[in-house]
Amino acid sequence: MNNDTALGNWAHGLAKELWPFPRSLTGHGVRQTLDVLTREIPNLERHRVSTGYRAFDWEVPREWNLKRAWIETPDGSVICDTDHNNLHVVGYSLPTDQTLSLDALKNHLHADPGQPDAVPYVTSYYADAWGFCLSQNQLADLPDGEYRAVIDATLEPGHLDYADLILRGETEQEIVFSTYLCHPSMANNELSGVVVASALARIVAAMPRCRYTYRFVFVPETIGTLVYLSTRHDHLKRHVAAGFVLTCVGDERGRSYLASRWEDTLADRIALAAIAETGKSYDRYSFVNRGSDERQYCAPGIDLPFCSVMKSRYGTFPEYHTSNDNLEFVTPKGLAESIAVHRRMIQLLEESRRPKANVLGEPQLGRRGLYNNLSHKGSATGSRLMLDVLAYADGSWDIMELSDIIGADVDAVSDAVDSLTAHGLLA
Amino acid sequence: MNNDTALGNWAHGLAKELWPFPRSLTGHGVRQTLDVLTREIPNLERHRVSTGYRAFDWEVPREWNLKRAWIETPDGSVICDTDHNNLHVVGYSLPTDQTLSLDALKNHLHADPGQPDAVPYVTSYYADAWGFCLSQNQLADLPDGEYRAVIDATLEPGHLDYADLILRGETEQEIVFSTYLCHPSMANNELSGVVVASALARIVAAMPRCRYTYRFVFVPETIGTLVYLSTRHDHLKRHVAAGFVLTCVGDERGRSYLASRWEDTLADRIALAAIAETGKSYDRYSFVNRGSDERQYCAPGIDLPFCSVMKSRYGTFPEYHTSNDNLEFVTPKGLAESIAVHRRMIQLLEESRRPKANVLGEPQLGRRGLYNNLSHKGSATGSRLMLDVLAYADGSWDIMELSDIIGADVDAVSDAVDSLTAHGLLA
Amino acid sequence: MNNDTALGNWAHGLAKELWPFPRSLTGHGVRQTLDVLTREIPNLERHRVSTGYRAFDWEVPREWNLKRAWIETPDGSVICDTDHNNLHVVGYSLPTDQTLSLDALKNHLHADPGQPDAVPYVTSYYADAWGFCLSQNQLADLPDGEYRAVIDATLEPGHLDYADLILRGETEQEIVFSTYLCHPSMANNELSGVVVASALARIVAAMPRCRYTYRFVFVPETIGTLVYLSTRHDHLKRHVAAGFVLTCVGDERGRSYLASRWEDTLADRIALAAIAETGKSYDRYSFVNRGSDERQYCAPGIDLPFCSVMKSRYGTFPEYHTSNDNLEFVTPKGLAESIAVHRRMIQLLEESRRPKANVLGEPQLGRRGLYNNLSHKGSATGSRLMLDVLAYADGSWDIMELSDIIGADVDAVSDAVDSLTAHGLLA
Repeated sequence: MNNDTALGNWAHGLAKELWPFPRSLTGHGVRQTLDVLTREIPNLERHRVSTGYRAFDWEVPREWNLKRAWIETPDGSVICDTDHNNLHVVGYSLPTDQTLSLDALKNHLHADPGQPDAVPYVTSYYADAWGFCLSQNQLADLPDGEYRAVIDATLEPGHLDYADLILRGETEQEIVFSTYLCHPSMANNELSGVVVASALARIVAAMPRCRYTYRFVFVPETIGTLVYLSTRHDHLKRHVAAGFVLTCVGDERGRSYLASRWEDTLADRIALAAIAETGKSYDRYSFVNRGSDERQYCAPGIDLPFCSVMKSRYGTFPEYHTSNDNLEFVTPKGLAESIAVHRRMIQLLEESRRPKANVLGEPQLGRRGLYNNLSHKGSATGSRLMLDVLAYADGSWDIMELSDIIGADVDAVSDAVDSLTAHGLLA
Repeated sequence: MNNDTALGNWAHGLAKELWPFPRSLTGHGVRQTLDVLTREIPNLERHRVSTGYRAFDWEVPREWNLKRAWIETPDGSVICDTDHNNLHVVGYSLPTDQTLSLDALKNHLHADPGQPDAVPYVTSYYADAWGFCLSQNQLADLPDGEYRAVIDATLEPGHLDYADLILRGETEQEIVFSTYLCHPSMANNELSGVVVASALARIVAAMPRCRYTYRFVFVPETIGTLVYLSTRHDHLKRHVAAGFVLTCVGDERGRSYLASRWEDTLADRIALAAIAETGKSYDRYSFVNRGSDERQYCAPGIDLPFCSVMKSRYGTFPEYHTSNDNLEFVTPKGLAESIAVHRRMIQLLEESRRPKANVLGEPQLGRRGLYNNLSHKGSATGSRLMLDVLAYADGSWDIMELSDIIGADVDAVSDAVDSLTAHGLLA
Repeated sequence: MNNDTALGNWAHGLAKELWPFPRSLTGHGVRQTLDVLTREIPNLERHRVSTGYRAFDWEVPREWNLKRAWIETPDGSVICDTDHNNLHVVGYSLPTDQTLSLDALKNHLHADPGQPDAVPYVTSYYADAWGFCLSQNQLADLPDGEYRAVIDATLEPGHLDYADLILRGETEQEIVFSTYLCHPSMANNELSGVVVASALARIVAAMPRCRYTYRFVFVPETIGTLVYLSTRHDHLKRHVAAGFVLTCVGDERGRSYLASRWEDTLADRIALAAIAETGKSYDRYSFVNRGSDERQYCAPGIDLPFCSVMKSRYGTFPEYHTSNDNLEFVTPKGLAESIAVHRRMIQLLEESRRPKANVLGEPQLGRRGLYNNLSHKGSATGSRLMLDVLAYADGSWDIMELSDIIGADVDAVSDAVDSLTAHGLLA
């Protein structure tokens, strides 16, 4: 069992622990989640802003805390109980406790006739409303009569919580992995990103040296990201070399790549190179199909080079935003595959120098022991890769491009660069 | 009967009225034409320069005024009578009244054996000469004997006349339509341009608001255009966003597009977008095939972004520069089709902003009533186009490009931009 | 017999004369070669640097002078005699005279089992060693016993010799042809370059006028080129418009093109245009396949626009670096074909202006006698090429590009440019 398989198992276990917390934009479900992450990720730093905080065009809403929500049917049984599944309540529902007819109740019930077995995921962050979600089958079976709807929740001034981890490397250039924690029990479209980010944080923390500084961001989607950017945009604009949104990285179906707005940033090139190396097909999406926090990172004026490598892209799988997006759909194997491709992306990033020759003309490799001094037909073969690297080392090509030009393996090119650098021939 | 059909009929009627005037580079035929246009196009401004005026490498020639030219045959009958068809005289012929043998006369007769029924169109603006044009069939039938050739004309210092119309819009950026009036009775390769330009001037004048300022130019071809540019080049260089030469826009055969020298100016892109929307095939010509006033507008150093959307391109149809280029070849339907495509080009130009977001990150559409506050799978569909526009609104893409990127209709994108601008979200 | 055929014969004769001289990086073989070239190429200038001279990362080694080397076999016969074939000694062998067993001798013998009839070419410039080269067949037949190995040579402080010829043209912009003289009896991979360079020097010297200044460089490969660049790099960086390495230009097999590092320099474009005109297929190689002095000229930091037009590329033909690379493999016909294509490259270079119009708008060709003043359908045909050239003469296109755009022959475009320039219409 290799390292990524072990990390995939670990990540799935972590997702199971985080599953029941009632995450939303704000509230104790987010804090419970961050408590667990703080335990698992050394040096994770927690931050918060207050209700009313302005982030660009947005304002942080009141904090919503759900104790429990349920419906009592005419025969006294309890349905839509959030103690059983926290998708049953519309996110950010106003507190209520009222008795009402089935017809009146139906104005507050949400089901998806297209997936009659699944409970849909519905929120109402920015409009005063309350409601319950249930399967279409359950809805159809509800008898007439008086119902009691109880939402035992508070919606009061409070905070929006988030966290980040910065692992400093040899340079101030940053690689960012960003994921979100605001959906309650949703496995692929939430927890998979959180746990893969956690696994990558462990991988980077264990690397003996890093050229790049790595930043891991855990925020509520959209508003949390805007809050995060509101005080860090200038810094990120100056330092981010590449960024990746982690979401929908846990199922076992195909792989997807969602391009940045520019389509050719370092982030895009690294993502495509790592995917290509897997030798497996993938779905390529333009930024038009964006759907997660790249919407903010790549927004005009924000202009950060983010793209996304997913398994099934959000919105394309039937389980999306339903109770079927669960920890059977997300598997240790699916998580391990995403950890593996992102680990390779990190490795390619670390290798991604643009070497520049220190010497005018070819250097004399012979006196450095890098060239066969007895010259005959074929004698240069062993030195050819080094000579090829030197021949193109004008500072304009990075390792992946050199690999393409020369027709040699990326890692072999990187090794040649290391060797030439050690001999003082490359800057 | 739609608006363009009505304008096509009106334009054809106008062409009929202009048909008999003996237009040339100079003289009363041009002035008669401008008199009619002044009546039809409110605010058309007339201009003139004198013989000897220098325009770049050229000098305005003497003014040529033809009263009548004809040949008396040995049997006393009259042929090549310009009262019957003003193509019978070589343009700018010196005045003459002489009797000469058929052989001597033949040095002054022009016919086209390739089109034995047609009278060819011949001019001699810049060399002292005189001559007559007739069909090859008529030429072949001429009996031996003494002929009298009479050209009752004057060639004296005078003026070169031209006109323009400027319709001011909200900005000083200009769209130019240029056409020429120096060919006598020629329908496609002269009058079609004049009457379509007149129709477009009426269309623009009736528009409730224009972002662009529109300039319509009526000049003798080549030297008139150079005269026009000689005092306006600096202004045009600063202000012209796109220009179009109107010529050969009246027949019912295919459509042609002649690219600017750069091939990718706003003019080219607008022309191609409007043609593409018609869904019909067209012939694409590079600037190598130029033949009208784009020769001056796009000349090195002049460098104005002009292209041309025609029906049959000059030089490619057999009627070209013969008496067969008449008002049966040019039809109301052909003119209406050209009016329609140029009307659409104007509309696309008016829509062709490069929107730029006013807000960092996605704005909160919900509180502006532009987004469904109850969020569930599929709830964003209605706002998707606006979000897509915002996501790419970095000031570098215009409406047509956004339409391509997003995969939405140009007009729908334009509407979304209007709406977002009204809400202060786009600059 | 055309001029190039005659030059091919002359070049082959010159190669025969140069064949026996024991060329190496240094020594009297190089000087003998330069003596002959000085006789054949008027104004060839000779230069030298001393042992120990530093050229970038390299140091000029001691001068090696071979009198004679041979092996005496146990039965007293003489083999590997350099008086018979100077490939028999490893280049830069230390002097020696010793008796040793066959087994001990074999450590100093080089043969190529893959080509059992041929003597391979081996050098050891930068490591102290000595050795002999012989065919695998001869090696296999050597009887046991005592051998005497004699290398009568000196390896002492001295000089590295080279030469160049500068033919000044109307501008200081330079075209460089560079070839090398450090291989002993090798015909394609040495002498073909030397004699074709000599032929081209004669061609350029005989040209009545040149826009460009031409530089012909004769140097030992690699270190000689670096020595050459060490004092001339700044000058060459400022003045070289295009450069070509001449090597492997004498066989009768296919043609090869080796691109510069940038692939689209003037050198590349000229080479490809001349090759295309031959109508024959060729092998195209990227700079990854480089192997001669373009390794230095195109090195990062040196950055000179060099490419190479060869017959069979070095390393790809079995005769390469063996005694089979001889003057039967290289033929007068093969040399003549290379002279012809390089002569055409020179002609294309001389024609390669980027014309720029002197006049705004089209000039009036008529009053200059360049246009038919009697204008009728088709009358402009004769002037069309001149008008096309003027239409694109914005200073950004050169003759070859104009030829492509306009669809006319390069030489016809060049003639039109000459004519328009003579009339003051082009700068």
